[in-house]
Amino acid sequence: MKGRKKIMTKNNTYNIAIVGATGAVGQKILKILADKNFPINDLKLLSSPRSAGKKIDFKGETLTVEVAEADSFKNVDVALFSAGGSISKKLAPEAVKHGAIVVDNTSAYRMDPNVPLVVPEVNANALKDHQGIIANPNCSTIQMVAALKPIQEAFGLSRIVVSTYQAVSGAGWEAVEELENQTKQHVNQEEMTADILPVGSDEKHYPIAFNALPQIDVFEENGYTAEEMKMINESKKILENNDLYVSATCVRLPIVTSHAESVYIEVEKENMTVSDIQKVIKTSDGVVLQDDPSTQTYPTPLSAANKEDVFVGRIRKDLDHNNGFHLWIVSDNLVKGAALNTVQIAQSLMNQGII
Amino acid sequence: MKGRKKIMTKNNTYNIAIVGATGAVGQKILKILADKNFPINDLKLLSSPRSAGKKIDFKGETLTVEVAEADSFKNVDVALFSAGGSISKKLAPEAVKHGAIVVDNTSAYRMDPNVPLVVPEVNANALKDHQGIIANPNCSTIQMVAALKPIQEAFGLSRIVVSTYQAVSGAGWEAVEELENQTKQHVNQEEMTADILPVGSDEKHYPIAFNALPQIDVFEENGYTAEEMKMINESKKILENNDLYVSATCVRLPIVTSHAESVYIEVEKENMTVSDIQKVIKTSDGVVLQDDPSTQTYPTPLSAANKEDVFVGRIRKDLDHNNGFHLWIVSDNLVKGAALNTVQIAQSLMNQGII
Repeated sequence: MKGRKKIMTKNNTYNIAIVGATGAVGQKILKILADKNFPINDLKLLSSPRSAGKKIDFKGETLTVEVAEADSFKNVDVALFSAGGSISKKLAPEAVKHGAIVVDNTSAYRMDPNVPLVVPEVNANALKDHQGIIANPNCSTIQMVAALKPIQEAFGLSRIVVSTYQAVSGAGWEAVEELENQTKQHVNQEEMTADILPVGSDEKHYPIAFNALPQIDVFEENGYTAEEMKMINESKKILENNDLYVSATCVRLPIVTSHAESVYIEVEKENMTVSDIQKVIKTSDGVVLQDDPSTQTYPTPLSAANKEDVFVGRIRKDLDHNNGFHLWIVSDNLVKGAALNTVQIAQSLMNQGII
Repeated sequence: MKGRKKIMTKNNTYNIAIVGATGAVGQKILKILADKNFPINDLKLLSSPRSAGKKIDFKGETLTVEVAEADSFKNVDVALFSAGGSISKKLAPEAVKHGAIVVDNTSAYRMDPNVPLVVPEVNANALKDHQGIIANPNCSTIQMVAALKPIQEAFGLSRIVVSTYQAVSGAGWEAVEELENQTKQHVNQEEMTADILPVGSDEKHYPIAFNALPQIDVFEENGYTAEEMKMINESKKILENNDLYVSATCVRLPIVTSHAESVYIEVEKENMTVSDIQKVIKTSDGVVLQDDPSTQTYPTPLSAANKEDVFVGRIRKDLDHNNGFHLWIVSDNLVKGAALNTVQIAQSLMNQGII
């Protein structure tokens, strides 16, 4: 961003603010910043008035959560937003006014043509065009494009048909608690009660335990859910491929952590083999091949939980379509799907000298 | 079958044998025969030596389960087999030798060109060519073809790409018990133990609770699982459409009952709309439309459990492919997916005067 001044901090360290510090993603961001020894000068934890005042430990120091407001962003280099779209809409421009770069984990700015939508392994180059706000993509999109970008590079990519298997933690702590409560109700042979899923603000709620809900986020006019449209639109933007056919069906499942995806793709290059696809996955950053039917090797939500990578298995050639392949893509939705990717964007800003 | 003699029973009633009477599907068959008041003269319950001797109530009578052996089928009109492929391979020909018609619920004979593979709403006409054995299709196939046949009739069908969301009861009582045990272990904060899923006879076992296992049945040489190949091959046979492109990814989930399927199809007729597809579903036998995003109406495994119909929702037109549509198809895998379809085949044999 032109005219932006780097705030003077010692030894190339940065003043960081986290908006939504007490949420599921905010907590993961804190853990990853600590684990990665991110060069922090000052760390400001921000939240809604409801959670303000809470104490949170960070690398041996006890920090107090403050209310997020326009003036919270004075002297902040990078503000990581993860507190819902309406908060980002209200406060991200304020943070930018104060000279911070915002990495926003909500859908508020993702499709704004002036906002880079970034998965660093895929399109870190887009960061240099930022105008103050950078968007972190939707969790289900991140893991899919991380796996498909190297395939697009190698063989071209013309089509994606994806069906998702998504964890409740993508809907926040309350949804995780709802699954846990329903699970206990089931064990105690009580009737299951539902108040949160599929969408807190929607009229009807259905139990998620021992069930599958084909609704994530609200419905749009065209009959697709907002989650499905995010996957469709964000994938094209991140892969910088407007001719790509993308369709999605998004389903919430009784899984605590990690999204899985059954992905059908068509590549442009003719006569590719499973082994060609496997080789590309094996040699790409942030993506791990776990694919050997002879040893029952494939990723699952439980095996991917708390890991940083995107795992790919069950790669098969379509039996009828010569350019078609099937993949099973799994990653921790709170780690690479949210918190890690946010921190990686901040790291990439650092590495590229943008901050 | 030429030369087959109807056994003389009173008032158009039939002598029925159930092989695998104590299993998950066998138990459902018994319930459905009772609920539907199937015209039974004599009912013989057969099983492995392990379960023989068990007492089972049927319409107020207590029946004793006997060991299934070659001579069990004397004077039997219809033998309903649901005790695993090896038992069917061994005993179904014996039952036929004794003059019984076999309805086999295993995969043993499904792809045999001399064996009709039947979903009565779809291809009851195939029954007349039987040579003693009739195969009941795989659970995940039945519900899909039941929903897609009327669409094929109306608009032609050229392609299916399906990702399944399958219940553990499809793997038998032991798998249901394993999910229940793991659920209790989770609630008690104990480590989950796995001995059955994904496949009892395979080397490795993974927890199914709070997980998704992209393996149902064993792997074949081509990297697809046997379950996926069943869906692919059986769909073409039942829909009598060898030019149909079919691909499948089959996934086991922590759901007790009902399989769900995210199905992408391409129809042959141009410019069809969601409303065209909905009308066809609405007016077809055995299939129920539950599709209204404005009221969050769609089927789920819990809502479909213990019901006889196949439920269809989330019908959307593909945003890029003019002939492409997405559907969400849900049905109880033990009812329409197994026991009900078996009984409906027997009813259809009756109605067509074949028995």
